Amino acid sequence: MRYRSPSEIMIGGSGRMARAATKWLDGSIVATRGVGWARKPRLHALSEAVQGKYHYTIGPYSDPVLYVQPGDRIRIETRDAFEGAIRTERDKPTKRLRMPFVNPQNGPIMIEGAEPGDALAVHIESMLPRGENPRGTCCMIPHFGALTGTTLTATLNPPLPELTRKVHVDEKQVRWSERVTLPYNPHIGTLSTSPEIDSISTLTPDSHGGNMDLPDMGPGSITYLPVRAEGARLFIGDAHACQGDGEVCGTAVEYASTTTIRVDVIKGWTLDWPRLEREDFIMTIGSARPLEDAARIAYRELVLWMEAEYGFDRWDAYMMLSQCGRVRLGNFVDPKYTVGAGILKKYLAPA
Amino acid sequence: MRYRSPSEIMIGGSGRMARAATKWLDGSIVATRGVGWARKPRLHALSEAVQGKYHYTIGPYSDPVLYVQPGDRIRIETRDAFEGAIRTERDKPTKRLRMPFVNPQNGPIMIEGAEPGDALAVHIESMLPRGENPRGTCCMIPHFGALTGTTLTATLNPPLPELTRKVHVDEKQVRWSERVTLPYNPHIGTLSTSPEIDSISTLTPDSHGGNMDLPDMGPGSITYLPVRAEGARLFIGDAHACQGDGEVCGTAVEYASTTTIRVDVIKGWTLDWPRLEREDFIMTIGSARPLEDAARIAYRELVLWMEAEYGFDRWDAYMMLSQCGRVRLGNFVDPKYTVGAGILKKYLAPA
Amino acid sequence: MRYRSPSEIMIGGSGRMARAATKWLDGSIVATRGVGWARKPRLHALSEAVQGKYHYTIGPYSDPVLYVQPGDRIRIETRDAFEGAIRTERDKPTKRLRMPFVNPQNGPIMIEGAEPGDALAVHIESMLPRGENPRGTCCMIPHFGALTGTTLTATLNPPLPELTRKVHVDEKQVRWSERVTLPYNPHIGTLSTSPEIDSISTLTPDSHGGNMDLPDMGPGSITYLPVRAEGARLFIGDAHACQGDGEVCGTAVEYASTTTIRVDVIKGWTLDWPRLEREDFIMTIGSARPLEDAARIAYRELVLWMEAEYGFDRWDAYMMLSQCGRVRLGNFVDPKYTVGAGILKKYLAPA
Amino acid sequence: MRYRSPSEIMIGGSGRMARAATKWLDGSIVATRGVGWARKPRLHALSEAVQGKYHYTIGPYSDPVLYVQPGDRIRIETRDAFEGAIRTERDKPTKRLRMPFVNPQNGPIMIEGAEPGDALAVHIESMLPRGENPRGTCCMIPHFGALTGTTLTATLNPPLPELTRKVHVDEKQVRWSERVTLPYNPHIGTLSTSPEIDSISTLTPDSHGGNMDLPDMGPGSITYLPVRAEGARLFIGDAHACQGDGEVCGTAVEYASTTTIRVDVIKGWTLDWPRLEREDFIMTIGSARPLEDAARIAYRELVLWMEAEYGFDRWDAYMMLSQCGRVRLGNFVDPKYTVGAGILKKYLAPA
Repeated sequence: MRYRSPSEIMIGGSGRMARAATKWLDGSIVATRGVGWARKPRLHALSEAVQGKYHYTIGPYSDPVLYVQPGDRIRIETRDAFEGAIRTERDKPTKRLRMPFVNPQNGPIMIEGAEPGDALAVHIESMLPRGENPRGTCCMIPHFGALTGTTLTATLNPPLPELTRKVHVDEKQVRWSERVTLPYNPHIGTLSTSPEIDSISTLTPDSHGGNMDLPDMGPGSITYLPVRAEGARLFIGDAHACQGDGEVCGTAVEYASTTTIRVDVIKGWTLDWPRLEREDFIMTIGSARPLEDAARIAYRELVLWMEAEYGFDRWDAYMMLSQCGRVRLGNFVDPKYTVGAGILKKYLAPA
Repeated sequence: MRYRSPSEIMIGGSGRMARAATKWLDGSIVATRGVGWARKPRLHALSEAVQGKYHYTIGPYSDPVLYVQPGDRIRIETRDAFEGAIRTERDKPTKRLRMPFVNPQNGPIMIEGAEPGDALAVHIESMLPRGENPRGTCCMIPHFGALTGTTLTATLNPPLPELTRKVHVDEKQVRWSERVTLPYNPHIGTLSTSPEIDSISTLTPDSHGGNMDLPDMGPGSITYLPVRAEGARLFIGDAHACQGDGEVCGTAVEYASTTTIRVDVIKGWTLDWPRLEREDFIMTIGSARPLEDAARIAYRELVLWMEAEYGFDRWDAYMMLSQCGRVRLGNFVDPKYTVGAGILKKYLAPA
Repeated sequence: MRYRSPSEIMIGGSGRMARAATKWLDGSIVATRGVGWARKPRLHALSEAVQGKYHYTIGPYSDPVLYVQPGDRIRIETRDAFEGAIRTERDKPTKRLRMPFVNPQNGPIMIEGAEPGDALAVHIESMLPRGENPRGTCCMIPHFGALTGTTLTATLNPPLPELTRKVHVDEKQVRWSERVTLPYNPHIGTLSTSPEIDSISTLTPDSHGGNMDLPDMGPGSITYLPVRAEGARLFIGDAHACQGDGEVCGTAVEYASTTTIRVDVIKGWTLDWPRLEREDFIMTIGSARPLEDAARIAYRELVLWMEAEYGFDRWDAYMMLSQCGRVRLGNFVDPKYTVGAGILKKYLAPA
Repeated sequence: MRYRSPSEIMIGGSGRMARAATKWLDGSIVATRGVGWARKPRLHALSEAVQGKYHYTIGPYSDPVLYVQPGDRIRIETRDAFEGAIRTERDKPTKRLRMPFVNPQNGPIMIEGAEPGDALAVHIESMLPRGENPRGTCCMIPHFGALTGTTLTATLNPPLPELTRKVHVDEKQVRWSERVTLPYNPHIGTLSTSPEIDSISTLTPDSHGGNMDLPDMGPGSITYLPVRAEGARLFIGDAHACQGDGEVCGTAVEYASTTTIRVDVIKGWTLDWPRLEREDFIMTIGSARPLEDAARIAYRELVLWMEAEYGFDRWDAYMMLSQCGRVRLGNFVDPKYTVGAGILKKYLAPA
């Protein structure tokens, strides 16, 4: 028998493509429970022109840019997290950006029939790079990132240097440096429904989704978000060509994308926190500080989900996850940190 | 091109065996720099009888049980974390255990020539179960675990139920329940050199190693620990037949093992925190509370290691790990939490 | 020489009255730098009727209820944090309240001439109880408070009991129980200017102020808040008849008040976080999780303030605060925790 | 009626003397329950010469230096936290100190009859400065303190400057600078009984006491510590001439003292964490990271104490502390942070 090294845990998206296999989708949660999945999807284009003004908060106070039906497909032109302001390696973030006007989001997209208490399903079908190369941007921004004092972990130390890296991104790879080429492993950093009354910075992840920065949220994933406002009010943006666990320096390879999603509504599926499904696993997502609270939220949601929908006794689920649960650190640089807790679907099969 | 799902990140040890492939070892750090690796190893047996009294603190005040040479092999009979006191599912931890006498350790083993400022290398060659089945034990212990108030995260809520699970463990699988069988994914939960003057509970991980609970620390891994006392004073114990990321309920599938290791000394390699090497990746390990501090330590150590020994500019390493670093949550239940930060070796290759 | 016991540190507001002495005000920061302090104040009444709908988020999207000049006085009818829904000890919060519609705020009040980059000064002149006794309400709300698992510190423990306490409050005392009478120590729990684009739950403190729950913020205090929107957009509410450090069970003695404030504008005084002044001390205020980050923010702000405006070398200030800085824990129950760091004015006097 | 400003909370030890009033002691816990308090105390001298080698860990492995009876008095010559190695402002800590050999402790002192499950009472009677002026030392040590990245809150920022301040200390005042004179507010930074089997760095506070850095622990205080080893094994050291809440730069005004204590034993009073009594209040002490866990521990202990010994219903105590509990931040710079939660004795009086 072949020995499979634990390094496979760490391979991440190596070799991932921009477009995901789709066969498993027929057995997915959204296919089983979504009100519109069986319909022939209508395609909507949310180009830069249609979007017009991008958004820097997620909330109920902005004007919808698109109305769609459950099961529809939307092709979206996302801008990079710096809204294109960082064009060369000489562009300094502190010169080119003005807080809080960063991490621009497309939307809000209204999904017909989505009401508070429902769940919105967002299947990411594909993510393609837009614009001229070098399209990818990574920055070290003073007082931002995991290995520096920040505005919240307040210190008196001198800041780290401010640096910009521009990198070639195509559908196969990210040319990080002369020395290192990384696989193209695209995912959406920020995906949200609207809170009921708050309007939250696009930099912050929370129970409505937001800036979760989970590498799992790429093509082939379905994210389930709690609906808390009529029409769900979907926001999306912050495409990453690749990202390490934790997004340690504060930014991924940020790029402008054409992202195609399919949306649907699951009636009466009331979620406290976002969930994610892929071919092989399900995941719950928590965002909080300190980091252990994000992990606690994620695991508690997973225990309760296994109890509610997969026929496990609560304590059996808890003890079993202590043996086979898997954790993804999304970010530990944003105003709240994000952790995903997952379990392979094969362990959820009925006896 | 085949699409590789992110779920591979989550597969963990599925299909792992108790004995690891060894060819890659020839190019490992210990093979290159260890003073004894080229020697023909002498085999030592550290049976229960030879060990006699097991230890509940890691420090300089206990009597050595074994003296070995760099490059030697040791076959160790570890006891489970409950020291065998939990024999049936009716045995309650609060009845059978008395704190702080848990997590018994073999050792201290003295490695000749190991001096403060050196690193001790511990290659885990194999881990085999000992004793009669059901050999594996998992407990929910009141006020212990990640999803409960604890002695430190002090609350007034009623405790969770106290539960014991006994499970069949063999060299291939862990029969968790009628419904779920998990792969045998053995690893060492607690591995330590001695601090200089402190004698630390075996429950606590810190910069000397300790109760890290990292699933990566199984057969096929080499752990590098800082030497802070003459002879290194190696302690080892706490075998797990499998464990999920974070060890969420507080315990893994704890079992008694026969674990075979090979040890060596790297002179003058002064480590601040433990490091780990496997065929495909290197990893740095931090233990602290809150959890983000454990992750900060791990990533900082990795940045500085890449700078010092792999020819990376510090900020290039930092920004690159933001794209390809991988994080393993060891535990978030012990007195300190443990995080490993890793990078695939292929990204470390010279230009 | 009389020995003064450290218990004086702990006496809190014993003997405090609803109306503060005012002579020291002539030398206060607002008196020296406010554009309207020398004016004869005009009195505005912000009664319940004038207010109409109270607010549950702090932001730029709500309609102003009052326009005032710098230096004006405003008499405000605040509602209690439960908006009067908890009338008897049989009223359960989970039955009577619907999240996120709690902690109602008066405002927004527009202050003429206040522009982004300025500071808004809010001097609390007096706080008088409104309504019939027992006016005061304290609740234990499930999954809320410092000594229970919460929605963020997620656990699986059973919740604490849900309890309501109604207490007599007058201008001198709070009759907590047959056994214990506490001094009336009124303060404002939630005081805010508007963020630039976010609209933040009134439960959350942050750099704009918000739900800080600082017992120091009562009559005799001047709070300085950063102006980030035209007119400052002042929100105020959440009166407490008394509160312990940390607000450990989650709620203070919440009551409806008639609170009289005087407001002013300090042009070009750009604050990153709120500040507070009383007769004897100045204080900086940080809100974050984990709690050490709130304390870090507060102390960093205080060091930088001493350097910028009181003629201290930065490191002298830092080391000196290590000898004489005083910390107030506002709350450690809200979505962010609040800490004030202060220094006695006598230590700020020029050499 | 005079308005008493909240600044009284912040006055700290202004005007405190080195010797405390003693009348209230007759009604203290130790006077009521201590086995030796009624005895005429015998005085023991624990001079530098008697002590010999000072200790850098707290544990059961060191040789006793003194045997005393319950109720005895001990006059102790403590060394400063740098063991006198920092003599001038040109002495750099990194040059003069070698970790972990800092914070030297007197002891262990054996108290006859103290057994595991008892409490040890330590009444600090007086603290007088020793040695030539400038006797006081305060240092900024690289990567240590609250407003800098540290070995645990690991960052890549450049360190703060390394600075030493020598200050005149006498029984009345601390001459901090030309500009600022602070009151002499002496207290013991580190006070411990021995853990059962661990031997813990003197830098770390925990449930056995340790490096708590609480300004309340000066003359006039009685600290109650859990006995976990035969004879209690009392360690004491780390005198501070004054200290701000949190000890923000990492060090207080460290000095060598002659500290006189009286010790006693309360049989069968089994404490989980240290407690403190002064004339006006009682306090419970928690040490942990993150800081909120230290506060949780302290408040939980206080609730349970009020329930067990003062006749309060548990939930009444919890809700009442939310109105009148007071918090002292000891340190947020040590390996664990320390918080005291207190209540005035007058609120504990029977109905």
